[in-house]
Amino acid sequence: MISFEKALEIITNVAYPFDNEEISIEYCLGRVLATDVFTDRDYPPFNRASMDGFAIKFDDFQQTIRDYKIIETIYAGQKSEFELKSGECYKIMTGAAVPLFANMIIRVEDSQEIAPNFVKLASENPKINQNIAQKGEDKKAKTHILSKGTVINQAVLATLAVVGKALVWVYKSPTLAIVSTGNELRKVSETVNDVQIRESNSYLIRAAFENYKITPNLLLHSLDNEAELTQNLFQALKHNIVVISGGVSAGDADFVPQILQNLGVKMLFHKVQIKPGKPIWFGIGSSNTIVFALPGNPLSVQVATKIFIAHFLQKCLSIAKPLFIEVPILEDRIKKNTLDEFLPCVLEFGEKTGVISKKFNGSGDISATIDTDGFYLHPKDKQILKSGDLVQFYKW
Amino acid sequence: MISFEKALEIITNVAYPFDNEEISIEYCLGRVLATDVFTDRDYPPFNRASMDGFAIKFDDFQQTIRDYKIIETIYAGQKSEFELKSGECYKIMTGAAVPLFANMIIRVEDSQEIAPNFVKLASENPKINQNIAQKGEDKKAKTHILSKGTVINQAVLATLAVVGKALVWVYKSPTLAIVSTGNELRKVSETVNDVQIRESNSYLIRAAFENYKITPNLLLHSLDNEAELTQNLFQALKHNIVVISGGVSAGDADFVPQILQNLGVKMLFHKVQIKPGKPIWFGIGSSNTIVFALPGNPLSVQVATKIFIAHFLQKCLSIAKPLFIEVPILEDRIKKNTLDEFLPCVLEFGEKTGVISKKFNGSGDISATIDTDGFYLHPKDKQILKSGDLVQFYKW
Repeated sequence: MISFEKALEIITNVAYPFDNEEISIEYCLGRVLATDVFTDRDYPPFNRASMDGFAIKFDDFQQTIRDYKIIETIYAGQKSEFELKSGECYKIMTGAAVPLFANMIIRVEDSQEIAPNFVKLASENPKINQNIAQKGEDKKAKTHILSKGTVINQAVLATLAVVGKALVWVYKSPTLAIVSTGNELRKVSETVNDVQIRESNSYLIRAAFENYKITPNLLLHSLDNEAELTQNLFQALKHNIVVISGGVSAGDADFVPQILQNLGVKMLFHKVQIKPGKPIWFGIGSSNTIVFALPGNPLSVQVATKIFIAHFLQKCLSIAKPLFIEVPILEDRIKKNTLDEFLPCVLEFGEKTGVISKKFNGSGDISATIDTDGFYLHPKDKQILKSGDLVQFYKW
Repeated sequence: MISFEKALEIITNVAYPFDNEEISIEYCLGRVLATDVFTDRDYPPFNRASMDGFAIKFDDFQQTIRDYKIIETIYAGQKSEFELKSGECYKIMTGAAVPLFANMIIRVEDSQEIAPNFVKLASENPKINQNIAQKGEDKKAKTHILSKGTVINQAVLATLAVVGKALVWVYKSPTLAIVSTGNELRKVSETVNDVQIRESNSYLIRAAFENYKITPNLLLHSLDNEAELTQNLFQALKHNIVVISGGVSAGDADFVPQILQNLGVKMLFHKVQIKPGKPIWFGIGSSNTIVFALPGNPLSVQVATKIFIAHFLQKCLSIAKPLFIEVPILEDRIKKNTLDEFLPCVLEFGEKTGVISKKFNGSGDISATIDTDGFYLHPKDKQILKSGDLVQFYKW
């Protein structure tokens, strides 16, 4: 049995950068950038009017000229056709390009029409370039703006659009097989007798991968039967990642570790000093197939998908942001074991921010994690946690 | 110009429950439950072995019997066929149904084989029902477990599977049209000249709806031209929700409010005392079409989609959880206006949890919200915020 830290280290060591693919910007929300991104030109790309108003020469205003002739109205997207001379102004709309002849905009609110095409302009505290966002003042051309490993959220997506990335290099999703095992399990659509339950782990595993926009290519259920398991795992091992639930403990029907090894998967660890999830088995197949074999109880699956599988995916996707944040706990807690223990909890905000574990009825309780925000780690070397101590909180 | 609170109230008043639809559990991650959900049977549905071990009669152990004859091995999913008599035991696997004849399980670690099919059992602190999760101890049949308005995350999804919901009643997504406007805007795939920029607001709006698994049915871009805008908005108004960006201010090319009213959309408000996003226009069309017309700058769009559009959607979807949390700010701030001001910020955790606003170069800065977690509200009636004051934080 190895430590949690050692397990993470082993997983990190076999993580590899996923392939890249160039996809349409229309489909890249939630995917992860596989390259750095640079500005294609200055931003703003032109001197941009930030107000509706009148664009004039600052020198004119300094020389106390107040009445101006409107020589052109410039809308956003429109190129000016006229050179501005002293005593003249452009009427200009927000977002329009201010011709280089002008270097000051007076808001429409501070103007007064004195005759057709003539305005009187006022400004309490006139400044050169006022109400003009200067070309390049936000970002110069070829400036680094987005890093490889950035998850594409709304802001990143819009930035990619702004800089003209109609096609975006993202990490290609690995192929994924999910295999649930257990004679007691029936599909959700099937009837159950009084010793059977419905299979739910595959839904937990799929949801965990969905966070990274990875969808399974193969979903199988297998009875605890060596022939059937061998056949199913053989099929599963044709994929980049295989996640199995159940069959990894020491019970008489727990064939998974042995069959994986028979199929050429090299065991990298079996059993980790954690609760829940202790019997987890991890290995690597002949074509670099990564195999996570998780214990069958749903709480173990939820914890293991986050602490181990998401950890692996973040390494493969170059996501630097840690999976946990450090927050205070808002309770005292005494630990009765010598394992790293993960506790479903609520993250509270307000005057006091922190986590409070949720009571539940053992790891088989179907609703143990409903209404929780994630789980926190009660480390193995601390028997007692006091309210206010910092802990690692993992959000679902 | 109305207050932020008044705007929210008006939006709340026109929110309506979306239709319901029954969909396969395979597609319901991220959707919202439209009905309460109850357990179909007791959970656990049978007395479940929580350890691999030997199931015996507690009375036998109390009467100091230590050597037991194994009469049957019971695997998960298997029905027992034999009645247990005094001095006998079942060998049993985790997850298996414990026959009613037995009421105690001794772990395999505490057993010793003394002859073929005979074991010696030990238990330091024997208890009735030990290592047996009792039928119904987690939840009785017909117990309320999930509420209408619950967003289906991994835990909810798995719970739906457990209780046999192969089909799930969720809120049906409304139809959605998104119309960007502006002569200066080009599609991301098109070339831009030196007075044009690329359209990015539609990506921000789509991402905001994607949070609720709503995808647009119609995406249009319109020039600031009354005929073209009229035609595009006429098409858009055939949908349940219309979101427009640009063309709502007081510029000469800002035709959107007038055209919407020409097309029979009743204005419910125009301009709200907020920054950014002040010029927002909101109305309702003849077939109950909800119309949000947002200002064109990307920061306004990001704030307005959260504070107004997400607010509307949460009401329609019965999502009770508030859109913001209350957290301390970790900076002092003086406000220079009398508006409710929303500031892109980072949410920090650790010894001190709270928000810090991110400096950016005006609302046109393309990277203003990159690397931020959301925004906080500096309320209009507080000129000064001191470090430690609680503010409303909206996560992206």
